[in-house]
Amino acid sequence: MEHNTLDIEPIGSTTKVDQVEKRLREYFKKKAYNVGDVLPKEQELTIALNVSRNVVREALSRLRVLGLIKTKKKTGMILAQPDIWVGLEHIMDPKILNHQTLKDLFELRLVIEIGLADLIFFKKTEKDIAELEEIVAKDTDEQLSFKLKYEVEFHGKLYSMTGNDTIIRFQRMLLPIFEYVVDLEKKAYNSRRVSNIMHRELLEILKNGTPEQFRNAMREHLKYHFDKIENHYESMT
Amino acid sequence: MEHNTLDIEPIGSTTKVDQVEKRLREYFKKKAYNVGDVLPKEQELTIALNVSRNVVREALSRLRVLGLIKTKKKTGMILAQPDIWVGLEHIMDPKILNHQTLKDLFELRLVIEIGLADLIFFKKTEKDIAELEEIVAKDTDEQLSFKLKYEVEFHGKLYSMTGNDTIIRFQRMLLPIFEYVVDLEKKAYNSRRVSNIMHRELLEILKNGTPEQFRNAMREHLKYHFDKIENHYESMT
Repeated sequence: MEHNTLDIEPIGSTTKVDQVEKRLREYFKKKAYNVGDVLPKEQELTIALNVSRNVVREALSRLRVLGLIKTKKKTGMILAQPDIWVGLEHIMDPKILNHQTLKDLFELRLVIEIGLADLIFFKKTEKDIAELEEIVAKDTDEQLSFKLKYEVEFHGKLYSMTGNDTIIRFQRMLLPIFEYVVDLEKKAYNSRRVSNIMHRELLEILKNGTPEQFRNAMREHLKYHFDKIENHYESMT
Repeated sequence: MEHNTLDIEPIGSTTKVDQVEKRLREYFKKKAYNVGDVLPKEQELTIALNVSRNVVREALSRLRVLGLIKTKKKTGMILAQPDIWVGLEHIMDPKILNHQTLKDLFELRLVIEIGLADLIFFKKTEKDIAELEEIVAKDTDEQLSFKLKYEVEFHGKLYSMTGNDTIIRFQRMLLPIFEYVVDLEKKAYNSRRVSNIMHRELLEILKNGTPEQFRNAMREHLKYHFDKIENHYESMT
């Protein structure tokens, strides 16, 4: 057997890929690698860990899909800055997720939209308000397909005003889920959502109101969806 | 290097795994496999896709770590119900994520806690209230370490009252991140967080108040953290 030149403990028993994946993560941490640092080669790791090359390859593949490592031409394998949503983006598909998860995610969206008020008020600029004005001004068409387009634009703009990339990307990733759930609701209830609070009012509060008023107005704006959740819970008790 | 005169992106040699991964996902969808259905074997896929076995293995490994497939003893490879957080759990580590992502996630937590009010009010039971009473009653100790323990217990209970597993697991997964950010804040400001609104008041509102009151009280309870965000934004402008 070739000598272990790396300061890493070899593997003993089964579920080898899991073990190797875990050990590699620990090793990278112990060695305090920084983002961009070149990592040991697959072959070196295979020898040091005393497992088959396929096991190492599969473990590395997992780390790659999780965004922890990436391969750069000529440089080889480096430690990457993990992208927390990249794995999730692969499975954010209404056809793949089960009904309960879709409902849970839809609720999470409502929760976030109510809670965003303070971040939006902290960061809002004249330019943001002008863009929202534009969206609201366009929203005079009675056609439902346009209504939905402006709905997505208006709410998307609110998210982007937070300046929080993690929240912004999460919302974008969830968009197909929202559309799917809204479609289901329409089919099930055959009714068109009418809100007492329109985007125009939300915008006025953004300009002259407080986060508290904005939260309450947003709650009213989303009332249709909250009512559905409430009715669902009540029907279960 | 030859010049690319067409406005078309060349195919990289390393993208085979990506292609196979994508094609497999499309194939499983087209075939309308259900959760639990047995999938074609690795060897069959290798032949059908006309690529090397290692490429197929790596693509399957990715799907496995994303929770889309799993291998059952004797049965072989089956379609799994994907677990949307499983990939994220692997990287939810303050040592791995960069500072900005940690801050973003901490803000997301604040946003969610403000927005949870309605779900909590829809679902609250006598038993939930009694459990919160117990947590609040224990919270008389002046020691900071206990304070933090009850803080986590109280807020964790609020999340679990929503009955939304996706939200509950997300919060649990984020706990190490919160602890890390709170630790950083303590070091940076050398001050102890004092809130005007304590858990006792939040509980009273849960018993006799409204979601709106609860949101405002929670905003006040988390004021310390929101102030920090606000000050940070102001210092940038």
